[in-house]
Amino acid sequence: MAFPTHPDNFFEHFRVGQVLEHATPRTVTAGDTALYTALYGTRFALHSSDDFARSLGLPQAPLDDLLVFNLVFGKTVADISLNAIANLGYAAGRFGQPVYCGDTLRTVSTVTGLRQNKEGQTGVVYVHSRGLNQRGELVLEYNRWVMVRKRDATAPAPHPVVPELPSTVPATDLAIPAGLHSRGYDTTLAGSPHLWEDYQPGERIDHVDAMTVEEADHMLATRLYQNPARVHFNQHAERGGRFGRRLVYGGHIISLARALSFNGLANALRVAAIHGGRHVGPTFAGDTIYAWSEVLDKTPLPAAPDFGALRIRTVAAKDRPCADFPYQVAEGTYEPAIVLDFDYTVLMPRRESRGA
Amino acid sequence: MAFPTHPDNFFEHFRVGQVLEHATPRTVTAGDTALYTALYGTRFALHSSDDFARSLGLPQAPLDDLLVFNLVFGKTVADISLNAIANLGYAAGRFGQPVYCGDTLRTVSTVTGLRQNKEGQTGVVYVHSRGLNQRGELVLEYNRWVMVRKRDATAPAPHPVVPELPSTVPATDLAIPAGLHSRGYDTTLAGSPHLWEDYQPGERIDHVDAMTVEEADHMLATRLYQNPARVHFNQHAERGGRFGRRLVYGGHIISLARALSFNGLANALRVAAIHGGRHVGPTFAGDTIYAWSEVLDKTPLPAAPDFGALRIRTVAAKDRPCADFPYQVAEGTYEPAIVLDFDYTVLMPRRESRGA
Amino acid sequence: MAFPTHPDNFFEHFRVGQVLEHATPRTVTAGDTALYTALYGTRFALHSSDDFARSLGLPQAPLDDLLVFNLVFGKTVADISLNAIANLGYAAGRFGQPVYCGDTLRTVSTVTGLRQNKEGQTGVVYVHSRGLNQRGELVLEYNRWVMVRKRDATAPAPHPVVPELPSTVPATDLAIPAGLHSRGYDTTLAGSPHLWEDYQPGERIDHVDAMTVEEADHMLATRLYQNPARVHFNQHAERGGRFGRRLVYGGHIISLARALSFNGLANALRVAAIHGGRHVGPTFAGDTIYAWSEVLDKTPLPAAPDFGALRIRTVAAKDRPCADFPYQVAEGTYEPAIVLDFDYTVLMPRRESRGA
Repeated sequence: MAFPTHPDNFFEHFRVGQVLEHATPRTVTAGDTALYTALYGTRFALHSSDDFARSLGLPQAPLDDLLVFNLVFGKTVADISLNAIANLGYAAGRFGQPVYCGDTLRTVSTVTGLRQNKEGQTGVVYVHSRGLNQRGELVLEYNRWVMVRKRDATAPAPHPVVPELPSTVPATDLAIPAGLHSRGYDTTLAGSPHLWEDYQPGERIDHVDAMTVEEADHMLATRLYQNPARVHFNQHAERGGRFGRRLVYGGHIISLARALSFNGLANALRVAAIHGGRHVGPTFAGDTIYAWSEVLDKTPLPAAPDFGALRIRTVAAKDRPCADFPYQVAEGTYEPAIVLDFDYTVLMPRRESRGA
Repeated sequence: MAFPTHPDNFFEHFRVGQVLEHATPRTVTAGDTALYTALYGTRFALHSSDDFARSLGLPQAPLDDLLVFNLVFGKTVADISLNAIANLGYAAGRFGQPVYCGDTLRTVSTVTGLRQNKEGQTGVVYVHSRGLNQRGELVLEYNRWVMVRKRDATAPAPHPVVPELPSTVPATDLAIPAGLHSRGYDTTLAGSPHLWEDYQPGERIDHVDAMTVEEADHMLATRLYQNPARVHFNQHAERGGRFGRRLVYGGHIISLARALSFNGLANALRVAAIHGGRHVGPTFAGDTIYAWSEVLDKTPLPAAPDFGALRIRTVAAKDRPCADFPYQVAEGTYEPAIVLDFDYTVLMPRRESRGA
Repeated sequence: MAFPTHPDNFFEHFRVGQVLEHATPRTVTAGDTALYTALYGTRFALHSSDDFARSLGLPQAPLDDLLVFNLVFGKTVADISLNAIANLGYAAGRFGQPVYCGDTLRTVSTVTGLRQNKEGQTGVVYVHSRGLNQRGELVLEYNRWVMVRKRDATAPAPHPVVPELPSTVPATDLAIPAGLHSRGYDTTLAGSPHLWEDYQPGERIDHVDAMTVEEADHMLATRLYQNPARVHFNQHAERGGRFGRRLVYGGHIISLARALSFNGLANALRVAAIHGGRHVGPTFAGDTIYAWSEVLDKTPLPAAPDFGALRIRTVAAKDRPCADFPYQVAEGTYEPAIVLDFDYTVLMPRRESRGA
């Protein structure tokens, strides 16, 4: 019998209520942030400059929120999705404590639902994952559901449990980093004069720039996140697989789309919530990613009057400029070029609060 | 009307005397220096070892000067050259305070000249750019001129102003980092016994080694510098463009040539000035860069008697070894393989001052 | 005459007893560790988390041992193997003081043997190399022998000296980092419940996962190590060379194989010795590396009763899954897919010592 090398969980191995403490803990450093910049070219001032962060009341520049997302997510893969066929969705993602260089992150997941599919070969696993820092404080929580293979098709189907997941995170649940204020917020250094008041629901923004993905890029990123999902790395095996080549990790596209969104959303200084996300189509090396965004909603934040929340949908497309805002051709059916539909909330300074 | 996403300056938007404070401020870290090493394989001891730097009177290893150049330059692109057709030249570049990990850099530019071209579709913009640290100290200044498109060809031509730019930075203007000395300078650790006395004007040096450029390499570098110029990143658009593919950022070639120059110039421990630079031809992924240098001049430095200045011309060529020192075939006309003609001054320890 | 750019040592330039102090000293940082993670996706908890390292009695996470190996090795190349034809072997490699971010590494080698080959064009150079930190403490020593060209075939053959090299490093010579203990070792965070007691000589482990190598990957790695061996970087010259393309640095494959070995050896928290290593075949970009390991021996460590030593052979193959443990087809003759045969010792916590 082969020496065990992985948790190697199949659908029938999960139990509702099961708690999975994931390996490998990770101390994040300035090396991670430099690599993140080199991988995506991100230009948001809060994450780029310690001085800028201090001018807003934080002790230093926090890590980019989606770097945190990818690091926290990466830890779950070995236990949850190594035998997954598809990543079906995200819900109720909420960022907590900001993460700083020197913090050590780990992830703990709880299985919140299980539903075997009718064909009997697969099932959907729902997990609630929590990223924690070295003090046990929450830095990110989110729900995710994935379709996982059964190893043994004759294993009995579990009692179906499907958790109720909110379609949005309410504004009152958004975490505002302690001490964060917008007094003296420098829109020139931040790269745009447009603040919360300048965005209205329904506004659509073409992010104009685009980025071609290379094999080395997406593999460097996915390894940085210590995400071991095989489909991203093994050309020898994938040559004979579904697509004939390596698949780009979906979180790489989320990070890329967020970096592109600087053109038009430069003052969106913090991702506060992820309401939902769908990897609508696969991305491969050689594809060029474009993106556009729509403002879905805006909300003042009584607990943090310097800032307002903008709910944003960012859509990424491959090999297709987004000046005409390509999206669904029918409810749930996307234009073929679309690869990502991402629904999230950002914090942005309010004009009237600056310089107060 | 489209939501504004960029400064999107065209020729007619610039005014002589205009000051542009560029986004995004950047705290530089050990992550940037490690990436710079991984991108170019640079081996200059002063930038590689904190202990070596301390042995020369500095508090720690300063960042490679051309990493500083590329970071300072990158910030100017969104405001100045996003609608540029060509980067025409550099002059009077001067490095100031050394940059250390933890410093935060920003760039401020002043428009010093404008001259519309005769065809009326483009014009030349002259800028003087200053890189500043968190204390407002100058880390680098340089002049650059670029050919920029007009958006509206009927916009009136500005009164032509062309700044007088010196062809060289005089040795008396070179900044010597405070405290820097060469007592106990270890030529063995530095990798070469050849010091300032060993170089004479007219000496030509083949740097022998060469480096093939990959798409992932130059894009990682250009993103690290937060330089958003589209032509480097978007294969989908460039496929139908001038070259049919992505163009390598010129600063990537400068850094590569400087790293190659370690073979023969290992003790050239600081770039002190950039007198001029021309990106003579385009570089693409797959090209292999070779380089050679000529000593143009040498000057003692009365204010820093431990060191001498060497004015160097480094020439980079693609897919062509440089043992025979390829250069111009006529005044201003280069051999087809040449991609870079770079004229700069380095500081090098003097033999007689060591061990004093 | 060409200006000298390299040490450019050929076989006839070496003398037994000669000491080579190699350039370039290197301060290692969190940037190096982040890049190492991005290059290999390594997941060993001790090197990933400062908190995990502190729970085992160390002040912070030490650098991955093979990152140390590659950095120490890289420094020797310019002096020893720039004119080498083949890297013939390693012996008696021993890791000493753990290396932490902020340490500065340098390498000193002694020529311990010389033997000209019969054809008179080449000879074997034996060196003992020592990697030292800024306090002069040994972080790694190893022996290596390489076949080096003669520049002048008529140069007289030296008196042949072949050092006696042990086939293994005895367990009593293994360095245990001061203060390291396994009390409270968290196998869940480390990613595997299998401890020293669970491994028996003869056990073979397929590491299952695999990694496709890209040109950008291996060049970034080799440059990070400041290893200037030309064959890895210059496609223009290699096009006409032995393989028609760039060769992947052998140390890149060692690091990759060790990272893959996490699947089955997750608690192998320190490489303590390298008994031998052979780069059996060349690796090129596009190859996919698989690996498997065999436990060759196990030894308790009286000086460190919390840990046991496992002698491991890790074999890497290209474009060939390793579920059937491919190896030699006859003594010294390997299956064609094999690229690496690496014989080393790891430390692993013992079950009975935990929680004591």
